[in-house]
Amino acid sequence: MIAIKSIHISEMEKHYRISLINSLIGYKSLNLLGTISQDGVTNLSLISSAFHLGADPPLLGMVIRPEREHNDTLKNIQSTGQYTLNNVLPQWYKQAHQTSASYPSGVSEFDSCGFKKYYLSGFKAPFVFQSTVRVGLELVEIIDIERNGTTILIGEIVQILTDDFLIEEDGNLNHLKAGTMTVSGLDSYFLPQFVGRLAYAKPGKEPQELNKVNP
Amino acid sequence: MIAIKSIHISEMEKHYRISLINSLIGYKSLNLLGTISQDGVTNLSLISSAFHLGADPPLLGMVIRPEREHNDTLKNIQSTGQYTLNNVLPQWYKQAHQTSASYPSGVSEFDSCGFKKYYLSGFKAPFVFQSTVRVGLELVEIIDIERNGTTILIGEIVQILTDDFLIEEDGNLNHLKAGTMTVSGLDSYFLPQFVGRLAYAKPGKEPQELNKVNP
Repeated sequence: MIAIKSIHISEMEKHYRISLINSLIGYKSLNLLGTISQDGVTNLSLISSAFHLGADPPLLGMVIRPEREHNDTLKNIQSTGQYTLNNVLPQWYKQAHQTSASYPSGVSEFDSCGFKKYYLSGFKAPFVFQSTVRVGLELVEIIDIERNGTTILIGEIVQILTDDFLIEEDGNLNHLKAGTMTVSGLDSYFLPQFVGRLAYAKPGKEPQELNKVNP
Repeated sequence: MIAIKSIHISEMEKHYRISLINSLIGYKSLNLLGTISQDGVTNLSLISSAFHLGADPPLLGMVIRPEREHNDTLKNIQSTGQYTLNNVLPQWYKQAHQTSASYPSGVSEFDSCGFKKYYLSGFKAPFVFQSTVRVGLELVEIIDIERNGTTILIGEIVQILTDDFLIEEDGNLNHLKAGTMTVSGLDSYFLPQFVGRLAYAKPGKEPQELNKVNP
């Protein structure tokens, strides 16, 4: 076993540190973030920093790092107040990865990387047609993190576009059936296999498997 | 395909909404959060809201919801300034789930759920002995989210405790070898299978698979 301390982390070669720190927390949510500018230019970027913030109201958070996601994304969200999160499937995960390339401002990653836009009436931001789980959000709050210049965006879920059969009786969305992928670190892509679903935990009671669901 | 809008979400039965909203973003990072009080009472809870915030300085964020994680966790972090995140393995994921039960304040989930504490000299918060990837953090910032009463904690990674052979040549931590699990929604547990690792994306260049690594 090795113990790596602050002093070792700060002395690491830059790319080694980025790879290590990015991979520490395990598997991450993987989504394509869709936006549109006031002029109608669309933007699509891959993010792995979305997190659940609450169900009532339905809120999600995510991190925008200016140097990676380009300023277009943040500018578009600020000007339209809307964005979409769309899951990533194995059939086209390489194209999804390709959206992280540094395309010039004004070039849409939808077109460059082979994604079809899908619009809902009354909602400006584009969804990814090829995805099976798509969420439309309205910006609620922008939090600037002074410590490292990143931005945390908080959005309210106002649209959910998915297939009926993916939502189970109790509301749980079945990501196995949806074909959703996950990512570890910067660039390692995975498809999860189901292990078990467990009942609500209570003190003094053995953990119980729920048999009703997956896969 | 169905389109669910704000009005439908707000009218959903409470538990249905919680299940659906929690499962929308896909697979989430799964970690046991270890803390200790000023009086030396340890606390362990399962979280799926950790997110990567930056590598230099090495920062992680996470969400604390008072009603679920108990106030003990937040109180302990505020008073000691330290906490640990530890990955979850399939051999004992049911015990990890059991830490989410509502144990009374003063009862340690380490003891109740069968986890062994592991301490590093000079660091107060307990690590989980059974984990294979363990991260020690120091509190940097507490952000209260007024919209729903949750709290975002930002911490700096000051300790990494893992096995040498899990860290690849370029710094990437191999979570397949580490046996790390992931979670979807509130209670569905998964073990990912490797699909591919992709090279840094560049405009106009086809996405390239990296052959050097996993599994």
